[in-house]
Order: sequence, then C-alpha cells, then structure tokens
Amino acid sequence: MELDDIRGKIDEIDSELLPLFIRRMECAEKVAEIKAEKGIPVLNEEREREILDCVSKKAGRYAGETRTLFSGIMSMSRDVQHKLLGSGTELRDTIKSAGASSPKAETAACLGQKGSFSHEALNRMYPEAKAEFYSCFGDIFKAVKSGKADFGVLPVENSSAGSVGEVYDLILKYRFYISGALSLPVRDCLASCEKNIKGIKTVYSHPQALKQCSEFLAKHGLDAHPYSSTAEAACMAAKTPGAAAVCSKHAAAEYGLNILANDIQNSDGNRTRFITIGRSLFISPEANKISLCFSLPHRTGTLYAVLERFARAGLNLTKIESRPIPDKNFEYDFYLDFTGNVKSSGTLDLICALYDELPRFSFLGNYIEI
Amino acid sequence: MELDDIRGKIDEIDSELLPLFIRRMECAEKVAEIKAEKGIPVLNEEREREILDCVSKKAGRYAGETRTLFSGIMSMSRDVQHKLLGSGTELRDTIKSAGASSPKAETAACLGQKGSFSHEALNRMYPEAKAEFYSCFGDIFKAVKSGKADFGVLPVENSSAGSVGEVYDLILKYRFYISGALSLPVRDCLASCEKNIKGIKTVYSHPQALKQCSEFLAKHGLDAHPYSSTAEAACMAAKTPGAAAVCSKHAAAEYGLNILANDIQNSDGNRTRFITIGRSLFISPEANKISLCFSLPHRTGTLYAVLERFARAGLNLTKIESRPIPDKNFEYDFYLDFTGNVKSSGTLDLICALYDELPRFSFLGNYIEI
Repeated sequence: MELDDIRGKIDEIDSELLPLFIRRMECAEKVAEIKAEKGIPVLNEEREREILDCVSKKAGRYAGETRTLFSGIMSMSRDVQHKLLGSGTELRDTIKSAGASSPKAETAACLGQKGSFSHEALNRMYPEAKAEFYSCFGDIFKAVKSGKADFGVLPVENSSAGSVGEVYDLILKYRFYISGALSLPVRDCLASCEKNIKGIKTVYSHPQALKQCSEFLAKHGLDAHPYSSTAEAACMAAKTPGAAAVCSKHAAAEYGLNILANDIQNSDGNRTRFITIGRSLFISPEANKISLCFSLPHRTGTLYAVLERFARAGLNLTKIESRPIPDKNFEYDFYLDFTGNVKSSGTLDLICALYDELPRFSFLGNYIEI
Repeated sequence: MELDDIRGKIDEIDSELLPLFIRRMECAEKVAEIKAEKGIPVLNEEREREILDCVSKKAGRYAGETRTLFSGIMSMSRDVQHKLLGSGTELRDTIKSAGASSPKAETAACLGQKGSFSHEALNRMYPEAKAEFYSCFGDIFKAVKSGKADFGVLPVENSSAGSVGEVYDLILKYRFYISGALSLPVRDCLASCEKNIKGIKTVYSHPQALKQCSEFLAKHGLDAHPYSSTAEAACMAAKTPGAAAVCSKHAAAEYGLNILANDIQNSDGNRTRFITIGRSLFISPEANKISLCFSLPHRTGTLYAVLERFARAGLNLTKIESRPIPDKNFEYDFYLDFTGNVKSSGTLDLICALYDELPRFSFLGNYIEI
C-alpha cells in the first residue's frame, strides 16, 4: 500500500469523527442548560473517571492514547458549559468594576537606595513620583498598604534580591494587584572619583555584578572586593581615593562619580524584569499582559490539561514557573504570565472558569508591560 | 430532557468515536512502516496544517475545539510512529552505553569557602572527596573539565549565587551531565566567639540570610551588617570580639564559633536544591529524576503539545521553568525535571522522539535525587 492510500483512509475516518465530535459538544451545551436550571456544578469528577475507565478498557493497546483523547474532549465540554453558565461570577464582577486608568503616583517605593537598579526602574515607571527606599520586599508592601506609597517597584527576575515566589506570596497576602511591568537591560560601568583607570587600586560591587564583569576586571588586572549592593559600592567609591565601583550609570550620576568605562559586562542581553504593585485593580484598554497563579496536585497531566485550555483560547504563555508548596508534598504552585486583555470575552471566560475549578487560583492583574 | 438522557446520548457517541480513533491509530502504524521503508521523516507539518484547516473550516462554532482535538490526535499518531521507528538513534545509543555507577570522587568542587552552604552539600554528596573551592560557576566547570575535580556541586534554586539558566547553559557548553541532586533545608544560627548573646554588638551575614532572620534580629535588638557570604561572615566573627554571624551550624563549626541560638530563620520549609555535575553520563538503576531542556517557538499551544506527551507517557513533572532566549524574540528555553528512569521503554521512546523533533533539545541526565 502507498502512503497516499493510507492518507485517503485517514481522511475518511476524520470525516466520520468530526460530526460525532460536534454532536458531543452540542450535548455538552444541553447538559449546561440542565445544570444551570438545577444548580449542579460543571465538574463531575466521578462521571469523568467512569468514562475514562470505560473507554480505555475497550481500547486495547491504545489505552493511554484513548485516555488522553477523552480527557481532552471532556475538558472542552466543561469549557463550553462554563461559557454558557457565565462561571466565576465573583471574579467577573471584580474585573468589570476595575477602573481603566492608574491613580496618580505621588510616592513610589523601591528596594535599596538612591542609584540602585530598582531606583532606575522606579524613575522609568513613575517619573513624577517621589522615591522612597526600603531594604526588603515586606517593607515595600507595608508602605503601600499604609498609603505611605502609592505603588511599589519590585525586581522579579535575574535578581538576587528575592524570588518571584516571595513577591507573589506577598501580593496574595496583601491582596494587591500587579499594575505594570518593565524589563531593563543590565548595563554596568566602572565609576570612580578618580579620572583615570590607572589610578584605580580596588573595585567594589555586589558579587553578582563583579561576576558579570569578570572579563573586564581580569583584563585590566583590577582587584575586586564584594560589597552589599552596587549603589552602596558607588557611595563607598565616592568617599575613597583610588577606589572604583561596578554600578549603573544612574548610580554613578547619583554619587557624582566619573565613568571610566561603559558597558563592561561580559555579555549583553542580560535584563532584569520589574513589576509594580498597587492596592487597587485597574485595567487599561491597552493592557497586554495577564498574570495568574494557582496550585495543582502532583498528578500526571494536570498542568498539560490547564495549558491545553490556554492554547484553545489562543493565548500565548510568556512565562511559567513552578515551585513546591512548603509543607505540602507533591503539590505545586504555578506562576503564569501570558499575553492578552480581559476585554476579550474568550480570555475572560477562561480565567473565570479556572477561578471556579482550580485550588488557590488568583488573578494577579492585567497590565501594560514595556 | 433529563441529565441521564443526555448522558445516554453522550455514551452512544463515545461508543462510535472510540473504534474510529483506534482505526486511525492503526493507520498511523501503517504510515510508519512506509516511512521506514522510504526514509521519510515522521513529522510532516504541511500535511498536519492542511488537515487542521480542513476540519476546523467544517466545524462551525466549534472550530477552536476541533483544532485542539485533531492536533492531539496527530501528535499521538506521531508518537506511535516514533515508537515503531525507534527514533533518536544517537541519543538512544548514548543512553544505552552509559555506565550504571558513578566513577569514584577523589575531589569535588563547590562555591565559596569552607563552611559555605555549598560545602555542606558537597560533604553530603561526596563524604570521601576532598573539597576544592571556587568563586563562580564557570570556574567549577573549568575544574571539572581539566580533571582537577571529578564532580562539581552547584546550587540551583533559592540561591543568590546564580540562576538555573546559567548552570544549564554551562552544562550544555561543556557537554557535561547532571549526576545527582540534593535538597538541603536552610537553617541559620547565630554564632560568635563570645559566649553570651548579651555581649553581641554587631551581626554580619549575607543580606539574604539577614532578611531570613529579620524577626530574631529585631527581637534581640541586634545591629545587622551586610557581608558578602555567610561563611565569610563566620570567618570575620571569629576574628572580631563583640561580633556574631548568621550562618550554618557547619560554618560555625569550621571557624570554631559558639552557637548562641539555633534555627533563627523566620520560617521553616526553606530549602536550597543542589545538583552535581560530571564529565560522563552514568545512570543508576535507582535513578529517579530526569532533566531536559529544549526550546520552543512562542506559538500558541506549543508547550501544551509537548506536556501532553509527558502526561500520556505517565510522567510527572516536578519542575518547569521558562526563560526567553537572549537575542531571539519570542523563543523560549524550557527546563523540565520529571520523575522516571530511562530503563522504562515508554520514557526512553518519548525522550528520543523529542530529541528528533524539538530544537535545542538536550538530555541533561537521569540521576538519584535525595
């Protein structure tokens, strides 16, 4: 037999499969009507398990494939039902009542001190706001909660200041929302109160920054000393003859240092991502990013079943991260970012359906990422 | 109509769907035979696109669901074909020729200095080995490559020393393999050459450790000073009357300090994960963890399509992380850990199929995680 003959057979099978599948989806719609009338929840795990056991028993050596096929079909049935039932009412109301524009930022809070990388991010996001500095994430959240700051600016990737998990935990604890995001390229310079690199004996910086610039430092035979932050190193270099700091241009300017060399990092393309957080939810019509978190039991296929629904809604994941939930073996928290806006009804329907179905589900915001 | 009536209809539809699906899988097997004969690759993106366009055009308001259904069916067909064709020959040979037990570790390399957290991990993993200390990941890899060290020990999670991305990039650059993994609870103590906490004026430690113990330090009114590492802080405290360090018990012992308080971290449950790397691949019959990385274009549904295959093979993901590939917009690298052993033919078949299909695919190791 030739390839074309078998492909003809496959096409025939597909033309029989398709109408059956459509009829099954139509049945799901009828099920939704009855469930709405009687107040029955969409997900019926027992019935799903029975169907899976029944079909896979009949499928012989294709039991695994059959289980996948029917899990997928039932997940699609559920989404059809959720859509008709308008699930996730509470979240739907929260999103519908969100303002469309950001409250004015008089004051914004960030990590570190003047000239820190977080300070630079704050200036980009809130050029009009007064900057307040704190030494840890928790204090930034407290400042936003008390109203001392309108927004907080937090590094969430490529950062030694803390993990994205810690930030997201704090967002959930304080019931805050993500209001924006910014990705800044990491560019290090050598800065000093000296005017020439020949006068430099010692270079101070955060160990990570020293490592990022190791090739430049080795080439110039400079002696590297670890320091607690790049901005503090700049502050130190400003007071110490013969010393330099590896820091941002911004920090060099803050502490009145001369820039002796620019872009001294080993490789370009390193970026740090920052998010901003605030007390209330607002969603700009131009918002292009959505962040969610939820937990899943450690069971084969649970994550794929959720991602399948994102794929079906045409949503592109831009980030996914898992971490074990402390003190709960084999359960995982997931952090997801994807592109989209809740104005789109398909996107809103999916988020509301997940809100009803997934444990520890939280909508963290829909914002502009620049 | 009652719920039971519709469910009866659904069961009827399923009983027609199932034999069609099985016939389609049997056709896939025949396709594999012909492809093997003629040396045609399994994946034919054009034919798949044609089928998807054709069925979704006919599916009316269920176009999205239909596309998902048929993508899934074709992915299963491909796996059936890969299995019959024994895909990924090169990787299959590498795995088959791997030794079953670890070469002896005379010397192992880790970050930092005596008493560092990495040193503790090294002692647990290689109690017989001599420890060598390096200041960055790159130098550890160089030491292993040159044979100065047999293995390297690297923190990959909850660590400020570097990101998992950097470690994985180095593994790929050096063509090393992951040979083991260990998860250590983070436990901080207050250590000093003084005998009583009342004599302490200043506490030194890495900023992250100081933050982890902020509640204890505040309660005792202790003045915290950031330092480049916990082990260096311990070394400093050993030389400075009236000073203490926040460090591990292990570091306190290394520098002959008295432990004034144990387990002073704010919360328990914090752990750091370490991996060990070596020059050659060996796979113990008891190996329980597999690490992979690969890249995917930023296209709706690509990740879900891969995870669906893991789910179908009955494999449990324990970690997933994405990051953008530098200088390539909208392409992502993924790092996956899952439980399993390549002894299982289903697991080996899946890895070999992915090796043939995914860009930048790498098998990083199959090892024991303790």
